[in-house]
Amino acid sequence: MGPDELELLNRYWNAANYLTVAQIYLQENALLRQPLTAAHIKPRLLGHWGTSPGLSLVYVHLNQLIRKTGAKVLYIAGPGHGGPAVVANVYLEGSYSEIYPAVSQDLAGLRKLIRQFSTPGGIPSHVGPATPGSIHEGGELGYSLAHATGAAMDNPELVVACVIGDGEAETGPLEGAWKAPAFLNPARDGAVLPILHLNGYKISGPTVLGRQSDQQVMAHLASNGWDPVVVAGTDPMVVHPQLAVALEHAYARIRQIQERARSNGASGAERWPAIIVRTPKGWTGPDFVDGIPVEGTFRAHQVPLSGVRENPAHLAQLEAWLRSYNPETLFDNDGRLLPELAALAPAGPLRMGASPWAQGGAAVEPLSLRPLENYALDVGVPGSSTHETTRPLGEMLRDIYADTADDPRFRLFSPDETNSNRLGAVFEVTDRCLMEPVFAGDDHLSPDGRVMEVLSEHLCQGWLEGYVLTGRHGLFATYEAFAMVSASMTVQHAKWLQHARELPWRNPVPSLNILLTSTCWRNDHNGFSHQGPGLIDTVLSLSGSVIRVYLPPDSNTLLATAEHVLQSKDYVNLVVVDKQAHPQYLSLEAARRHAAAGASIWHWAGNENPEPTTGPDIVMACAGDVPTEETLAAAWLLQSHVPGLTVRVVNVMDALVLPPPDVHPHGLSDVDFEKLFTPHADVVMAWHGYARAVHQLVHGRSDPGRFHVRGYNEQGTTTTPFDMVVLNKMSRYHLAMEALHRVTGHFDGAQELAEHCQEMLAKHEVYIREHLEDLPEIRDWVWTPPENQRTI
Amino acid sequence: MGPDELELLNRYWNAANYLTVAQIYLQENALLRQPLTAAHIKPRLLGHWGTSPGLSLVYVHLNQLIRKTGAKVLYIAGPGHGGPAVVANVYLEGSYSEIYPAVSQDLAGLRKLIRQFSTPGGIPSHVGPATPGSIHEGGELGYSLAHATGAAMDNPELVVACVIGDGEAETGPLEGAWKAPAFLNPARDGAVLPILHLNGYKISGPTVLGRQSDQQVMAHLASNGWDPVVVAGTDPMVVHPQLAVALEHAYARIRQIQERARSNGASGAERWPAIIVRTPKGWTGPDFVDGIPVEGTFRAHQVPLSGVRENPAHLAQLEAWLRSYNPETLFDNDGRLLPELAALAPAGPLRMGASPWAQGGAAVEPLSLRPLENYALDVGVPGSSTHETTRPLGEMLRDIYADTADDPRFRLFSPDETNSNRLGAVFEVTDRCLMEPVFAGDDHLSPDGRVMEVLSEHLCQGWLEGYVLTGRHGLFATYEAFAMVSASMTVQHAKWLQHARELPWRNPVPSLNILLTSTCWRNDHNGFSHQGPGLIDTVLSLSGSVIRVYLPPDSNTLLATAEHVLQSKDYVNLVVVDKQAHPQYLSLEAARRHAAAGASIWHWAGNENPEPTTGPDIVMACAGDVPTEETLAAAWLLQSHVPGLTVRVVNVMDALVLPPPDVHPHGLSDVDFEKLFTPHADVVMAWHGYARAVHQLVHGRSDPGRFHVRGYNEQGTTTTPFDMVVLNKMSRYHLAMEALHRVTGHFDGAQELAEHCQEMLAKHEVYIREHLEDLPEIRDWVWTPPENQRTI
Repeated sequence: MGPDELELLNRYWNAANYLTVAQIYLQENALLRQPLTAAHIKPRLLGHWGTSPGLSLVYVHLNQLIRKTGAKVLYIAGPGHGGPAVVANVYLEGSYSEIYPAVSQDLAGLRKLIRQFSTPGGIPSHVGPATPGSIHEGGELGYSLAHATGAAMDNPELVVACVIGDGEAETGPLEGAWKAPAFLNPARDGAVLPILHLNGYKISGPTVLGRQSDQQVMAHLASNGWDPVVVAGTDPMVVHPQLAVALEHAYARIRQIQERARSNGASGAERWPAIIVRTPKGWTGPDFVDGIPVEGTFRAHQVPLSGVRENPAHLAQLEAWLRSYNPETLFDNDGRLLPELAALAPAGPLRMGASPWAQGGAAVEPLSLRPLENYALDVGVPGSSTHETTRPLGEMLRDIYADTADDPRFRLFSPDETNSNRLGAVFEVTDRCLMEPVFAGDDHLSPDGRVMEVLSEHLCQGWLEGYVLTGRHGLFATYEAFAMVSASMTVQHAKWLQHARELPWRNPVPSLNILLTSTCWRNDHNGFSHQGPGLIDTVLSLSGSVIRVYLPPDSNTLLATAEHVLQSKDYVNLVVVDKQAHPQYLSLEAARRHAAAGASIWHWAGNENPEPTTGPDIVMACAGDVPTEETLAAAWLLQSHVPGLTVRVVNVMDALVLPPPDVHPHGLSDVDFEKLFTPHADVVMAWHGYARAVHQLVHGRSDPGRFHVRGYNEQGTTTTPFDMVVLNKMSRYHLAMEALHRVTGHFDGAQELAEHCQEMLAKHEVYIREHLEDLPEIRDWVWTPPENQRTI
Repeated sequence: MGPDELELLNRYWNAANYLTVAQIYLQENALLRQPLTAAHIKPRLLGHWGTSPGLSLVYVHLNQLIRKTGAKVLYIAGPGHGGPAVVANVYLEGSYSEIYPAVSQDLAGLRKLIRQFSTPGGIPSHVGPATPGSIHEGGELGYSLAHATGAAMDNPELVVACVIGDGEAETGPLEGAWKAPAFLNPARDGAVLPILHLNGYKISGPTVLGRQSDQQVMAHLASNGWDPVVVAGTDPMVVHPQLAVALEHAYARIRQIQERARSNGASGAERWPAIIVRTPKGWTGPDFVDGIPVEGTFRAHQVPLSGVRENPAHLAQLEAWLRSYNPETLFDNDGRLLPELAALAPAGPLRMGASPWAQGGAAVEPLSLRPLENYALDVGVPGSSTHETTRPLGEMLRDIYADTADDPRFRLFSPDETNSNRLGAVFEVTDRCLMEPVFAGDDHLSPDGRVMEVLSEHLCQGWLEGYVLTGRHGLFATYEAFAMVSASMTVQHAKWLQHARELPWRNPVPSLNILLTSTCWRNDHNGFSHQGPGLIDTVLSLSGSVIRVYLPPDSNTLLATAEHVLQSKDYVNLVVVDKQAHPQYLSLEAARRHAAAGASIWHWAGNENPEPTTGPDIVMACAGDVPTEETLAAAWLLQSHVPGLTVRVVNVMDALVLPPPDVHPHGLSDVDFEKLFTPHADVVMAWHGYARAVHQLVHGRSDPGRFHVRGYNEQGTTTTPFDMVVLNKMSRYHLAMEALHRVTGHFDGAQELAEHCQEMLAKHEVYIREHLEDLPEIRDWVWTPPENQRTI
């Protein structure tokens, strides 16, 4: 790097830093063309200065790499609270003004730029959806490297430059994400270039990695398969050339790795380059404030100079700080970046703020799915046969893999549970991916596989998020209880989508599809820790504009659901269905109708007249496979023992038809809701998750107190499937008794049925909980109730 | 290790393995004294064989270490699904039968032992609360090492041996937990001895670490500050001596580190020993089944031989497998372990299954708190002064640190937010803990500090869980939104407590206290990603026997809450209160009464007569600090503009008074509930979290549809505090308008107030969302509503 180039580059960096400070502090006098006064200062000073110079440093150097090599780079800012730095850079390169023309590249635009930052009606302080070029908010720390890795998968030309702060590097999810080299295949995937920025401090304390030696930090990355170099210093003129060289070498190495793999095939895990940048926190900011050191300490984290409006010394120091960047040498009279500086930015879509990948890919290529008839079960009489509900879905996913083989844009992510979840048909056409040696006894394992199995819900979900945010499609299949491990990621992704949808310039992206296949009701073998339907509750609280919750009762409804969610965009789709063998109810045609409606009366399971005049005495409602099974049995018990009782069965497979339409767009109109549930009849409902969630959903409906809900009630252990429904009081007997309790008037047979239910539960109780020691064979007390499910 | 010792040790290990297989398969013929028949086999085969021999290997070797050195060892089984192995070991050492006398050390007890495993009415398949010596379930993977680290803190004599499976080692939380050496002080803390067990496979795929070279895995641990050795082999007679030596060396090294630190003071992070054990998955199990390799592959994960009742070849293979351990050389005629083997177990409380630390410590020493009068605010007229609500709590915590300095048993855990959360008074008496070099500019940092700050919610919570499960006290203070990061840990801890409470032999342990101090309403500066009250919903779904949710409205109620939760046992206490300056309402005396009641009528804020005869026209209810502020203002608006309206204000600070008493023990009786809320009056409620959760809580109460709730509605950005309540429609104006909408009949002034509210909201809308560009100064549009809160 020649001295001229160095000087230009440093001035460009100065421009970015200048605009960062200006955004944090100024509401007028953007270029300091007048002496700074208190009136120029914003009334509330918000923002994070500490990480910003580092983010800009990397950005301006990546610009040079892109200009020299034509590399296609996606920039991920792990420390997303350095938002003003990234905004400054996308403004300087011009991509910001193209998207937001009012924030033009002139004095008027500069004024808007500084005033909008972190002010009401303006832009938020983080690198959010509103930031061009971003797929990562960086608010909740931990996921930058996983997002980067997901973005690189099946994106062979892309280099994802991922800045990781040393604060974020303390989180578990980030630590887990370092193992990316074991899963990135240079023959087909893009590259991830981690840039670990050690500025030494968090909010008020040092960081663990920041205090460790270069050697120890390098060893940490190296042990995860990376080949790190260190760039360090406190003098920009020393650091610039180092970083430029490090980036050039890293890029050359990336291309070398890829070319070799693309010529000769990928072998073991590659030692991908990584860069450790050690520069002061709040670099180029105030050294001391009121005699206390600030630059290079935690005190530079947010707003180094406080009370600037009231404190003339601080005001003077701010002015000196701003002027230290020599704004008059950066911008022309009209407020435009000087041409020799503007020339340092890449052009067109190579600008990182204009990366097509950050907006869902150049164009999201939809998945074309084969007709569901290929996978549908021939159900026959409802309930007459059982089948592992998720197995046909595996066949559907298999064909998606097959049909996208030439244009790979689908992946399945799972914590080592693809087979366990009965989705193993995918292995007919692809393998598990691992860039480590393959042994003879391994099952469908190869570097070329596209099924991503790693025992980390954080990685599975983070990779998928990066994959869909760059315009591809996928599914995260996991145990229901352990979906809570990444629940906060689900929340954050929903928040991202909610804001992104409001931005017309952001392309819709494929939905985040989460399939929970090993549910609370059938983790009877794994026990209490594996029984937790909590993600439903978490998702239900989020914005109706982006969340969907499906509880298909059987395989064909699951297929209809999958067809929809895999083609949908901008949603978080939660699909909950058990993998074990369960009764099957609906033909494909009926399943499609049911899925489209979201909830239907199952006339064949009740005993209303075809033209009901008075409505049912009781509505038996259900949502989810096991609840449906128990409800159908209860409905049969009621009808067969109490023939005078009119029973209606309603199955709900889209949980969000239940709330009123002003709460969720799927919410049924009151008229349609009452067509299902009547205006006032008591409803006994069996619900897949925590029962009381239903009361949250039906609030606002006619007479919501009439909903009597049974669901998972946080009771469980290693026991029989039937005992699970008994423990949680959702068994057919409990449901039938609840119904009898709710109906008014005398019905012949009601008393006898109630006694029968009590008797059966007592029998179960004896078998399960009293006779363990005396029974001759355990077989005898794994008792299941008699067949009593209506099958006509 | 001499040949005799080796042979004895191996026989003991055989006994553990034998009993493990017997638990998985047998219901009769426990010692194989008859030829094995199908009738001896359990009807449903559950359990995880793969990890079990490794867990037992470590256990029997730790026994020898304990016998030789008198070490006090706590055993943590990361792969908790190896439950039968741990149960086998605690049975062999005798601690199991002491707790469960029916499972005696004889033939009758053996029969019970095998029959109870993973069968209904028996014991679950994981190392749960029912397993003596365990503080860690190992169901949801990722937290073993964090639990071990927390258990070691302030436990100077304890060695926590933590077996980590290579599956668990793929999780983010486990990866993050490797940094323990940066936080463990050998002068005062016990030791953590990680034993990374690489058997190479998860359920159906290989593990990342399992496929890496010894060198790479060692480098990985070394880079985190450990000093690892590898013990590897497929021949037990080769592995036994290696492991024995490795454990002896590790223990000697631990004692050396501790002695030096305890003599000379602790300096930098120590290189603690760690052991990497590489042995086959399902070691000593079937090599091949039906011609397919099993031992040393993923196929050994669960039950290697399936269909044993139906498949005579499998039955024969099972018998051969069981007989390969030569049970006749292990147990005497009465089914007792032979004396020469029994002698290999430690005695009394040194047995790991009898560890006093696994049962809450020998005795939980309560915290004696100073009188709250030391910290209480002098509030005066309610609402007349503001104060940072959490700051007095910081003083209370400071004194707890001071008062336990000689017997340390309290720690505060936080992701670098102690100061930010206004708890900084603790630094008057202690520091942040870090075992890395301390620099001159650091703020209260030293190896001797007991404030644990690490930017990982998983580590903070995992450490605290380990700390309280071993009988000490603590508090995890974190940002509300990011408490969702460890929400699944909260669920799992609640599940642990729920089951542990049912076991009379388990001592109650101090509660897990989670303080959320930077809440959704006042993350207006950080924006949308930092606004998420979801943990409340997660906790509300759990068992009422163990969960508590407190929303103190001000500082004195927070103190009263803290006094209670810090002295409580066996709960998960969630306390939500903002750290910013807020109005203060209650004197300490009034706060104590309010806290004891959980919810009260605030007569001073309403206008009912002292002896109400007809009840209020409207109840204005609130829960949480910001909702209280807005509700009081709304109540003032109603009373001052519509003097004919009778308004009651109810503040709820214990969320769990709302559900009926059969749902939660804090639930008010219907009589008491209606004393607050009347039987039928409309209730306008402002709720801290997602509004619809209240409908879940009040289901079962009289006329639940009359509760009209406003709360966080997933709307937010970087904006003003008042805009946050407007965006979520919970502002004083929204609440007042909702009240006017709900009351029936004509009231003078109502129309005018409704218009006033609309006008004020319109004014706000103009300021915030329309006039950004035209206003001369940003100051003008950071508009807050006029003072209108009743202060009498």
